[in-house]
Amino acid sequence: MEEVNVGIVGLGNVGSGTLAILAENADQIALKLGFRLRVAAVCSRSVQERAIPQAFAAARRTTNWRDLVTDPGVQIVAELVGGNGVAGDIIDAAIAHRKSVVTANKELMGSCGPEIWDRAIRAGINLAMEASVCGGIPIHAVLREGISGDRVTALHGILNGTSNYILTEMEKRGDPLDTILAEAQKLGYAEADPSADIDGFDARSKLALLAALAFGEKILPSDIFVEGIRRISPMDFRYAHTLEHTIRLVCTARQTHDGLILSVRPALIPQSTILASVQGAYNAVWVKGAFGQDTFYYGRGAGPKPTGVAVVSDLMRVAREIRFGSPERVSPFAHERLGEYKPVSVTLQKSAYYLRFRVSDRPGILALLAGILASKHISLESVLQEPCDTKHDLPFVITVEPTSEQSVCDAVAEMAQLDFLREPPLALPMETGL
Amino acid sequence: MEEVNVGIVGLGNVGSGTLAILAENADQIALKLGFRLRVAAVCSRSVQERAIPQAFAAARRTTNWRDLVTDPGVQIVAELVGGNGVAGDIIDAAIAHRKSVVTANKELMGSCGPEIWDRAIRAGINLAMEASVCGGIPIHAVLREGISGDRVTALHGILNGTSNYILTEMEKRGDPLDTILAEAQKLGYAEADPSADIDGFDARSKLALLAALAFGEKILPSDIFVEGIRRISPMDFRYAHTLEHTIRLVCTARQTHDGLILSVRPALIPQSTILASVQGAYNAVWVKGAFGQDTFYYGRGAGPKPTGVAVVSDLMRVAREIRFGSPERVSPFAHERLGEYKPVSVTLQKSAYYLRFRVSDRPGILALLAGILASKHISLESVLQEPCDTKHDLPFVITVEPTSEQSVCDAVAEMAQLDFLREPPLALPMETGL
Repeated sequence: MEEVNVGIVGLGNVGSGTLAILAENADQIALKLGFRLRVAAVCSRSVQERAIPQAFAAARRTTNWRDLVTDPGVQIVAELVGGNGVAGDIIDAAIAHRKSVVTANKELMGSCGPEIWDRAIRAGINLAMEASVCGGIPIHAVLREGISGDRVTALHGILNGTSNYILTEMEKRGDPLDTILAEAQKLGYAEADPSADIDGFDARSKLALLAALAFGEKILPSDIFVEGIRRISPMDFRYAHTLEHTIRLVCTARQTHDGLILSVRPALIPQSTILASVQGAYNAVWVKGAFGQDTFYYGRGAGPKPTGVAVVSDLMRVAREIRFGSPERVSPFAHERLGEYKPVSVTLQKSAYYLRFRVSDRPGILALLAGILASKHISLESVLQEPCDTKHDLPFVITVEPTSEQSVCDAVAEMAQLDFLREPPLALPMETGL
Repeated sequence: MEEVNVGIVGLGNVGSGTLAILAENADQIALKLGFRLRVAAVCSRSVQERAIPQAFAAARRTTNWRDLVTDPGVQIVAELVGGNGVAGDIIDAAIAHRKSVVTANKELMGSCGPEIWDRAIRAGINLAMEASVCGGIPIHAVLREGISGDRVTALHGILNGTSNYILTEMEKRGDPLDTILAEAQKLGYAEADPSADIDGFDARSKLALLAALAFGEKILPSDIFVEGIRRISPMDFRYAHTLEHTIRLVCTARQTHDGLILSVRPALIPQSTILASVQGAYNAVWVKGAFGQDTFYYGRGAGPKPTGVAVVSDLMRVAREIRFGSPERVSPFAHERLGEYKPVSVTLQKSAYYLRFRVSDRPGILALLAGILASKHISLESVLQEPCDTKHDLPFVITVEPTSEQSVCDAVAEMAQLDFLREPPLALPMETGL
């Protein structure tokens, strides 16, 4: 049984998960493929200290990725270094040497994916990147093959496990964000600098990549409105529950008459929707199609083994094509080919909104706020107030009927000037179309 | 721009949905592929009365499938007739004429899938069957490509929309099965003869096909334990809710030390699990992998357009391979290749159980039942009884700690002899591993 030979660059979490699966699942992989996947070479700066599974003890070990990429015994290069640095050089060199590439690199695919794909297509090699977004969820296979005949009209995701863990713990336990974050940091679930997770930037780069795949449009993270979860507090969950909703950091890409509205922001979602049942560090993607309607995909967003499954599945597909002939490549980004989806400002969005206030109480506050809303032609839906003793820091909530984001922004800006407000109003959209 | 030519046999629900998508989404399909999909011929017994989209007005219309299959202008045959009858002849003839085949045929793929695949592989043509199971959920692409590197250890599904609709309506409204079924029949959601849906046989043939794909094992519907939902009543939902569970018709294929346990049966599942949020006519598949852990897929199980998306996505994949060269086929069934999974009896299953009784009340009943359980070494977990006026038809529930199905069957058989029981005890497993 002939083999296909793989070189692995990067032996961090994803690299070691990939090696483990290739070793532990070797027989089943061979039975599925009809041939073996052999790890011919591994590269890492600390390769001599790394434990390599016994099955691949004969693999060449190098600290220099150029040795691996130019090794005539390597047919597929798995770039598992990550980031925007040397990873790009590794992939470029692999393509230049006509090696197929499997990558788990979200940053690189998000920023230079289209250009890298073009080079790969011209070189006649294959590029696979299932692991670059939503680790354990095979969303790329779904979009590329499973529902390729559909026309995606909207995509909603929970794409950052850390922020979802924090929100669902806040919901369960009623503790404030700082407490849960500190705990998560102690347990290693959250970074010392938590900004990428809780300010929404990590989710934003994932959404950019996912939306690019779904809509065939070049989408930059900077095209995407982003708001993190720092202002969400346990009382927002209590009010949301009263409204039969919950709160999640929702990533949205939605085609409208005006164009593609893209956002990452905390939003109220109905408790009855399946997205509301995504707990802890899980990821999920909800796709709406013009023809197939709703489909939903859920799994681990990260982790050595779940992401390793994505890498190994890609290696199998690419290896099969190397062995048995390969169809012409079609860039999954297909930028400027579909050309129907243009990002537009989130202020064009129409939605119901949840407005949460903290005020120093005095007579006439509600009348004043209601007056501002009326002046923007926004209709009140409900007013909610929990029992509260502290007159000087009184929370309450107004929900309003569907209106434009712009009107809400205008109203909130005007309200923020009022001296009885302890902080600017918190405005969250209420997603009803889920 | 050259085209790939498709012939469609069968213009029922799925055929007309497929035609509509091919027409309405033609431009985006062409942009994704780099060439057009043209419908060159359509076949149906009533083809003259069928509305064909304007875009395909020039298609050859025939009532004789042999004309279509032998038409040199047809490169891919879409078999959308369904069932175990003429569909098999159509596919055989297409393979004999070296046409690639796309099929939505659950019955045929479930009963003769492996043999048909072998013929297709020998003929060097492609066979695609995404639409044959879970219509709008691209589960075949997921298993074939997305998570092919993983080793599936268990699969749980809600695979019959009609029975899930009935159960979730019963849960919401508290009406008995007969009332909801009669309504569903009036609305056309359920067949005049509802047995296939509510006795679990439709779900069973879907599970056979899905488990065959997931485990690479030849699995016949007759290998699968089946129990329908006829005995479920609103009171079972009330008791289940007290236990923080709900009830669904759960299809399970689970690898154990003894072998593969396969069942279709109503089961209690925790309300907190994502499977519990599958409402109405939706389908869902939960996959557990040795490496990737939990992934979950959800969508419409049927309907012209959702199933049409699966057919069109398959047509695109097959057409791309026709245009650009095709990898050697690998049968997704891979029967007798993986060879690790052998169906074993459901009586080997270990689980907690829910036992619901209806009795003519008299002293000593609980002691008698508890005695029978103790004699089988089954430990009680809880006893629940709703307030009830009717001494002669008193319902109550006993839940027991994890034990073997065989012990529960033995206990239930012994209990069924007791004269105070109004009907044999209803025993449902409580799925905790979801």
